[in-house]
Amino acid sequence: MARAARQDTRLDTWAGRYASRAHGMTASAVRSLFEVANRPEVVSLAGGMPNIADLPLDVIADNLASMVFKEGTRAMQYGSGQGEPVLREQITEVMRLEHISAHRDDITLTVGSQQGLDLVTRIFCDPGDVVLAEAPSYVGALGTFRSYEVDVVHVGMDEHGLDPDALRAATGALKAAGRTVKFLYTIPNFQNPAGVTQPLERRVALLEVARELGLLVVEDNPYGLLTFTGEPIPAMRSLDADNVIYLGSFSKTFSPGVRVGWVLAPHAVREKLVLAQESATLCPPVFSQYVVSTYLATCDWQGQIVSFRDMYRVRRDAMLDGLAEHMPAGTTWTRPDGGFFVWVTLPEGLDSQAMLPRAITSRVAYVPGPAFFADGFGARNLRVSYCYPPPDRIREGTRRLGEVLANELSLHETFGLDPSSVDPGPRRITRGPGANQS
Amino acid sequence: MARAARQDTRLDTWAGRYASRAHGMTASAVRSLFEVANRPEVVSLAGGMPNIADLPLDVIADNLASMVFKEGTRAMQYGSGQGEPVLREQITEVMRLEHISAHRDDITLTVGSQQGLDLVTRIFCDPGDVVLAEAPSYVGALGTFRSYEVDVVHVGMDEHGLDPDALRAATGALKAAGRTVKFLYTIPNFQNPAGVTQPLERRVALLEVARELGLLVVEDNPYGLLTFTGEPIPAMRSLDADNVIYLGSFSKTFSPGVRVGWVLAPHAVREKLVLAQESATLCPPVFSQYVVSTYLATCDWQGQIVSFRDMYRVRRDAMLDGLAEHMPAGTTWTRPDGGFFVWVTLPEGLDSQAMLPRAITSRVAYVPGPAFFADGFGARNLRVSYCYPPPDRIREGTRRLGEVLANELSLHETFGLDPSSVDPGPRRITRGPGANQS
Repeated sequence: MARAARQDTRLDTWAGRYASRAHGMTASAVRSLFEVANRPEVVSLAGGMPNIADLPLDVIADNLASMVFKEGTRAMQYGSGQGEPVLREQITEVMRLEHISAHRDDITLTVGSQQGLDLVTRIFCDPGDVVLAEAPSYVGALGTFRSYEVDVVHVGMDEHGLDPDALRAATGALKAAGRTVKFLYTIPNFQNPAGVTQPLERRVALLEVARELGLLVVEDNPYGLLTFTGEPIPAMRSLDADNVIYLGSFSKTFSPGVRVGWVLAPHAVREKLVLAQESATLCPPVFSQYVVSTYLATCDWQGQIVSFRDMYRVRRDAMLDGLAEHMPAGTTWTRPDGGFFVWVTLPEGLDSQAMLPRAITSRVAYVPGPAFFADGFGARNLRVSYCYPPPDRIREGTRRLGEVLANELSLHETFGLDPSSVDPGPRRITRGPGANQS
Repeated sequence: MARAARQDTRLDTWAGRYASRAHGMTASAVRSLFEVANRPEVVSLAGGMPNIADLPLDVIADNLASMVFKEGTRAMQYGSGQGEPVLREQITEVMRLEHISAHRDDITLTVGSQQGLDLVTRIFCDPGDVVLAEAPSYVGALGTFRSYEVDVVHVGMDEHGLDPDALRAATGALKAAGRTVKFLYTIPNFQNPAGVTQPLERRVALLEVARELGLLVVEDNPYGLLTFTGEPIPAMRSLDADNVIYLGSFSKTFSPGVRVGWVLAPHAVREKLVLAQESATLCPPVFSQYVVSTYLATCDWQGQIVSFRDMYRVRRDAMLDGLAEHMPAGTTWTRPDGGFFVWVTLPEGLDSQAMLPRAITSRVAYVPGPAFFADGFGARNLRVSYCYPPPDRIREGTRRLGEVLANELSLHETFGLDPSSVDPGPRRITRGPGANQS
């Protein structure tokens, strides 16, 4: 591994020329493994791809053709750096389902919510600034923060999500150490990867602490509408319009391939976001915005979301049933009320990263816990997702995972602790939500 | 203006929190003027929007519907961070028209070539680094460089584009001053805004100087295929695969609204680009890539480019005829062999920026010269574009512009020099290409 890295450096004529931020851009160690994991014989519980097979492609295709025929010269032309007003208006309707009342002028369209996060980080964060995030947090967000040379400090969670006391403690410690904390990044609904949700009272408590600490909140909400338990919980943004920047996305409720997300931000921030968007792309993809707008205007998008909920609930149940049946004693996991992910805590002594090659050999894949921490924590955790494989494959995947864990435990009993898994990792103020759950 | 700016700052709760780079993100002073310029009674020679009215929308709509019906679940799903292999293969065919021989694995798809430039700057440039660019240069590139806190140093051009001696001199002076020059940014074909083109021998000479100086070249080529004089000139990338990063785009040959551009880069750079793309967007818009791929596979895209050339040539002729008829003595301009733009140098004493409100009152709009310089130069220049209005409107636009100039000159003769236009601006080593042309 080290040798390959040195060789790459020798071969790269430009090695001495890159920006400082480029040094943080390195391919994930598990990337090559996941290429193997994509083989059909492997049950991949690793990915976060939505299952869009049930979209009414025939209707979408027809409506799209009419749109191109009638409005093609506008849909295929340059557009607004902020995004098309018609779609921004429709987005206010979508957000109303989560109790958000907003004006379309406060919305900026982005290339998926990933780019929303990129632009927010771009306008707020200098190198060395701190962003607070849940422990664990979304791997893609950690990558974006790293690419802006931002230090992530994790804040502990329990089964109700981010812990307000831990938030206060972390912020206080950082301020005492002279660090500049730019914002709190949080996923309140069906958190990726932990699968836990902040109840309404927790949101209120967190927002109170944030206001008290002068802490901006960036609320990332890709999964909020995919709830399995009735009505969505009001978004944090619906409770505090002045102190929350909200990231939305059509990737999980319609299509990730169109790459249409949005940022709802206080007016002054929105102005900076549009300038940053113009600098990054001139304008977000206009054609994609017309595709989404046409879908919202001509299809039963709310009915489709209800179908998605039902479909994912069945898969979530298959996952929880499979885990209950196949996990060895000492394994714990979270029970998501929506979204895509379950967070598993392994019996003491096991190491999710070290185990991954053996799991893939046993034709099951997951994402090891350390991917979701900026500080090396997570060796005893892994994320499994139930969004993409059908229920019987999910059950089979948990069976294979159970076998892998049983083998690891038996090795562990025979040969003793794997030294790598005893290392507690860097000192940290965080803890995972699965630690005290059965 | 100053009062409004102060007020905005007071209203922005976050004013003290933004990243250092966000301070360079300010709305252009002419933005509000251009809102007026978009009124139908104004002939806008300001924009760079392609005229896509002649695209075969009926055929495109039908083929798109079949694509969605057949391949929708892939086109609407997450895709590769590098871009879809099929489209990358097709792009190698497109680039072959400009003598580029490339492998699809060295291509990274981007959200228009604007994002290509953003990602290249992101991986190469630290704050305070220098990028060399033509004098004048593309306003969107200057915005991107500014957003990464990069200093642009302009290099003089003549009627054959960038001057190799000026390039050597500028680089030498910067190195002597201890500055870090990261790359040369150049638009060899029908330059935006100058409308001049580097002949083959000039490209060879520039690449020689660049290699001698250890200077990476970023070649931005959105207009290369829109030539009015026969075959395209070989791209710089076709002459030096190791030292040139090439930016391509479908915005001018098909559709800007799909936002599909690409970067062709040496292998090691390409690896960084893909990581930067994943961090910025996860993946570039997959659906857009399928739209472009379907268009290339099912329509006569090369025939369409020939039609575009003919259409734009007629408009270029209308522009040059109108300028010859209506410009007052002492005005000079460039004669583009392709692309969208003519660069005008005004008679001494006139100021394109000061004059713009009066021009818009006279129902004609252009972009003032200083927009294309990072150093305040360009008061005596303006850019007019012939891409979007039909020929008779272009002629009418030049007539109105001629009247505006005549009025300015007569004011100038009556009341003497406008002091603002005598100021030579900051000292600089550059000169515009129109200065010594009739």
